[in-house]
Amino acid sequence: MANTEFGYVRSFEQWDALPPSNWIVVRIDGRGFTKLCKKYDFAKPNDTRAIALMNSAAEQVVRSFVDVVLAYGQSDEYSFIFAENTALFDRRNSKLATSVATLFTAEYCLQWKDFFPGTELERPFPTFDGRCVCYPKQAILRDYLSWRQADCHINNLYNTVFWTLVLKGGRTTTEAEHELKGSLAADKNEILFKQFGINYNNEDEIWRKGTVIYRAYDDHQQQDGTTSKKADPTSKNQLEKEKKRKQKAKIMVEHTDIIKDTFWNERPYILASKR
Amino acid sequence: MANTEFGYVRSFEQWDALPPSNWIVVRIDGRGFTKLCKKYDFAKPNDTRAIALMNSAAEQVVRSFVDVVLAYGQSDEYSFIFAENTALFDRRNSKLATSVATLFTAEYCLQWKDFFPGTELERPFPTFDGRCVCYPKQAILRDYLSWRQADCHINNLYNTVFWTLVLKGGRTTTEAEHELKGSLAADKNEILFKQFGINYNNEDEIWRKGTVIYRAYDDHQQQDGTTSKKADPTSKNQLEKEKKRKQKAKIMVEHTDIIKDTFWNERPYILASKR
Amino acid sequence: MANTEFGYVRSFEQWDALPPSNWIVVRIDGRGFTKLCKKYDFAKPNDTRAIALMNSAAEQVVRSFVDVVLAYGQSDEYSFIFAENTALFDRRNSKLATSVATLFTAEYCLQWKDFFPGTELERPFPTFDGRCVCYPKQAILRDYLSWRQADCHINNLYNTVFWTLVLKGGRTTTEAEHELKGSLAADKNEILFKQFGINYNNEDEIWRKGTVIYRAYDDHQQQDGTTSKKADPTSKNQLEKEKKRKQKAKIMVEHTDIIKDTFWNERPYILASKR
Amino acid sequence: MANTEFGYVRSFEQWDALPPSNWIVVRIDGRGFTKLCKKYDFAKPNDTRAIALMNSAAEQVVRSFVDVVLAYGQSDEYSFIFAENTALFDRRNSKLATSVATLFTAEYCLQWKDFFPGTELERPFPTFDGRCVCYPKQAILRDYLSWRQADCHINNLYNTVFWTLVLKGGRTTTEAEHELKGSLAADKNEILFKQFGINYNNEDEIWRKGTVIYRAYDDHQQQDGTTSKKADPTSKNQLEKEKKRKQKAKIMVEHTDIIKDTFWNERPYILASKR
Repeated sequence: MANTEFGYVRSFEQWDALPPSNWIVVRIDGRGFTKLCKKYDFAKPNDTRAIALMNSAAEQVVRSFVDVVLAYGQSDEYSFIFAENTALFDRRNSKLATSVATLFTAEYCLQWKDFFPGTELERPFPTFDGRCVCYPKQAILRDYLSWRQADCHINNLYNTVFWTLVLKGGRTTTEAEHELKGSLAADKNEILFKQFGINYNNEDEIWRKGTVIYRAYDDHQQQDGTTSKKADPTSKNQLEKEKKRKQKAKIMVEHTDIIKDTFWNERPYILASKR
Repeated sequence: MANTEFGYVRSFEQWDALPPSNWIVVRIDGRGFTKLCKKYDFAKPNDTRAIALMNSAAEQVVRSFVDVVLAYGQSDEYSFIFAENTALFDRRNSKLATSVATLFTAEYCLQWKDFFPGTELERPFPTFDGRCVCYPKQAILRDYLSWRQADCHINNLYNTVFWTLVLKGGRTTTEAEHELKGSLAADKNEILFKQFGINYNNEDEIWRKGTVIYRAYDDHQQQDGTTSKKADPTSKNQLEKEKKRKQKAKIMVEHTDIIKDTFWNERPYILASKR
Repeated sequence: MANTEFGYVRSFEQWDALPPSNWIVVRIDGRGFTKLCKKYDFAKPNDTRAIALMNSAAEQVVRSFVDVVLAYGQSDEYSFIFAENTALFDRRNSKLATSVATLFTAEYCLQWKDFFPGTELERPFPTFDGRCVCYPKQAILRDYLSWRQADCHINNLYNTVFWTLVLKGGRTTTEAEHELKGSLAADKNEILFKQFGINYNNEDEIWRKGTVIYRAYDDHQQQDGTTSKKADPTSKNQLEKEKKRKQKAKIMVEHTDIIKDTFWNERPYILASKR
Repeated sequence: MANTEFGYVRSFEQWDALPPSNWIVVRIDGRGFTKLCKKYDFAKPNDTRAIALMNSAAEQVVRSFVDVVLAYGQSDEYSFIFAENTALFDRRNSKLATSVATLFTAEYCLQWKDFFPGTELERPFPTFDGRCVCYPKQAILRDYLSWRQADCHINNLYNTVFWTLVLKGGRTTTEAEHELKGSLAADKNEILFKQFGINYNNEDEIWRKGTVIYRAYDDHQQQDGTTSKKADPTSKNQLEKEKKRKQKAKIMVEHTDIIKDTFWNERPYILASKR
């Protein structure tokens, strides 16, 4: 058969399974979003419709991939955390990265009209690149999430002051940039407060903290999880039960601190280890 | 600064650049398209609107990534061939796979309404997984493309007979399946011809050959390419010129044989090696 | 300069650093040792000189690479465990595997004359292949070591019965093989005891347990370790101190159980996590 | 069985096969050879015994791995080129690198006494690290080899002038270093000629060109190779024949230019492509 002669080309595909017992983070980033923001005239420093669209797309991704235990997003990026021992796509790097990134893109593009009614998308259409990163320990995964939330804080404080200087303070963008060069967080807070009467801590949490989406289980559901541990966790029946349990979980969307321990102590099931 | 403490988590990202001097194939595949075909009632064995949408999305991908020298598609899959020495995204595996797959997905989803007017997309939305494969030699890359086109032929012949037996021959799908078990290409051709008066070779080439999309250069443009070789190919000016040359290339969409030499002999520039 | 023209070939080297925060196991295996055993007439089922040579070579490897926290060996294999956060060779896979495997080989070849006096080594000389494997959790690393020690037990029990049947029981090797087919551990123990009056548990621990080599620290040294944690662990001074501490550690060679918790509970410093 | 419970740890091993249709270079480098040179008082700028030992060890490696088509060495490094489509060890990176590096090390250590009679090796024993690099095209592989030979030339010219200035010219090493800073090849040649009457081109080729080792086939043997192409190259019988052909090849050791085309044009079989 014609195909047999050419089939050897498959041997060039590299097997790219990620190592077991690691949380897999798939982080997606908007491609060329600086231009996109300008084109569709996103509000500065933050656009409510744009962030709502990001969060709505992310929620659908979480809903669709039941092995995502938590997602964290800010600006034009989102990180989806897959369970430490997920067997999705045999943990293959490319399958995970492209499946998550294309679903996010599909949701973003098709929900656009709900968040920007009357504004038709034009080429280049919004797209997102993605990558997988493995984190071997709970503490390090939390540091990863802290890194993203700290980044959100730093960027948002800067953007808030910068655009306040421009929009309310009458500076040119160059002047504002110059004024903020080398300034510390305390300096920025002071500018906001002294010059504009703005207390940064009163700004909306969605901008200061970003967005956390996670599967929440009530006590009864968790108990199910515990029960199922005693049973053979790899039996087909058990896997099916486990999948249903995840599908029934409530998807929570919150704007809250995930750097401190409180969030995690109250929801120990999110990063709980299961074989 | 808060971020310094957590920044070490970046060290967990693996550098995934693909080796130089290899053609990079990004192949994307529809996820769950068997269900999607049923849901939107795609015609059997082939749906004209669906394939036109695939091809239109692919054309935009080729147009957008100027380093794609050729793309080949059939059914719900497409292979995009990047130039042997493309420097796009520093040849990083994840960036290439996700950027191509998300652009294809965005185009597919947003063009849907043009090809399926009146049929709104519903969840789960169409998405595509993707992967990069490196091919070190021109002859092997051609074998890769031959493999896909031979696959197109084999599947389409089977599907054509199968659905003819069902739709015109009154068989149940089980009967048709049983009837074709173990049959050779010659057998299938005979069933079509003797029982239904169909000459498979008269079937539309879009189904028998799939679709080839490539950047075409006329003599003048090629000469430009040749000229620019003499100049320093890495100078900024030269790179800019080269990019413009690619952008000016005509995008051809054809349904033709790419297994035999003819296609390639007539378009030597497609797989020509450049540093 | 001539070299500039060719220097681009370096870009084909792939960066192969192993992920941080994983114990790195370098396991080496004798190449073609079945033939080597016959050639040099190793005693059956176990040869005292051969295992003493393996252990002596391994001890030198442990001594030489101060980041090895423990090594485990049996038969013609040895596993060297590098500290969870070792920075040796920037954690590069190839450097680690080849440096350990070549040092082990050099020691084996050059110490041969001490263990096999009067028997000159002939080609093919003894060599060892090697590979790195990453283990992200302490519990999994312990399972790895349990896997190797369980393997030692299974093989040694089999070999002990097999060669007792042949050497003391007058069976041919084929008869012995046939007799043991499908037998359980209990069956093998019974054959040894009933037919030959041998209590397997009285066999030497070096054969039943294999060999564990590790860096041992007394209380004072551990305290140093603890103290140094408070200081900046990346300062040059501190790194130098830490290296000296490791060099001063006593190298222990034991034949003991490492599957149960006792060994580890008594030596918590072996797998202790340090940044 | 005890082992079943722990066997899952194997899933942490990563599959590391190198891509097909690429020449695989295994380059080994002496570890800590600067110290070793001093310890054993190697002659400056070049030590005849040391290079003879390197070459003798390399020859045995070439002899042992019949898929090595050519090896090139200089100073304390050697590159072994495996045939473009070698199936040795399923092309696994770690197996190739460690098997070559440990064989080289064993040969170096055990042949030492033949080249340095009366000088016993002491710890740290000589060892070599190693790595695999893939080259997809003949021309690029040749550039790799040219890179190494150009490096040999550059270093040897420098070392020759440097040590002539010190040993015959009475300079301190610091003075010689200072004198050569920024000098071009022409300058160095002139120093040698004008100050010491030495024509660099008359220096021994072993130092100026390094050492090339390759399997040579006479016409009859090549014809065998050609003939066997027509037969099924994967049949066991044919593979056996091919292996014998390689074993019968003559191993040539030469000090000659491999940058220009002459060497290669006269021995087209060395880099000839075979499936």
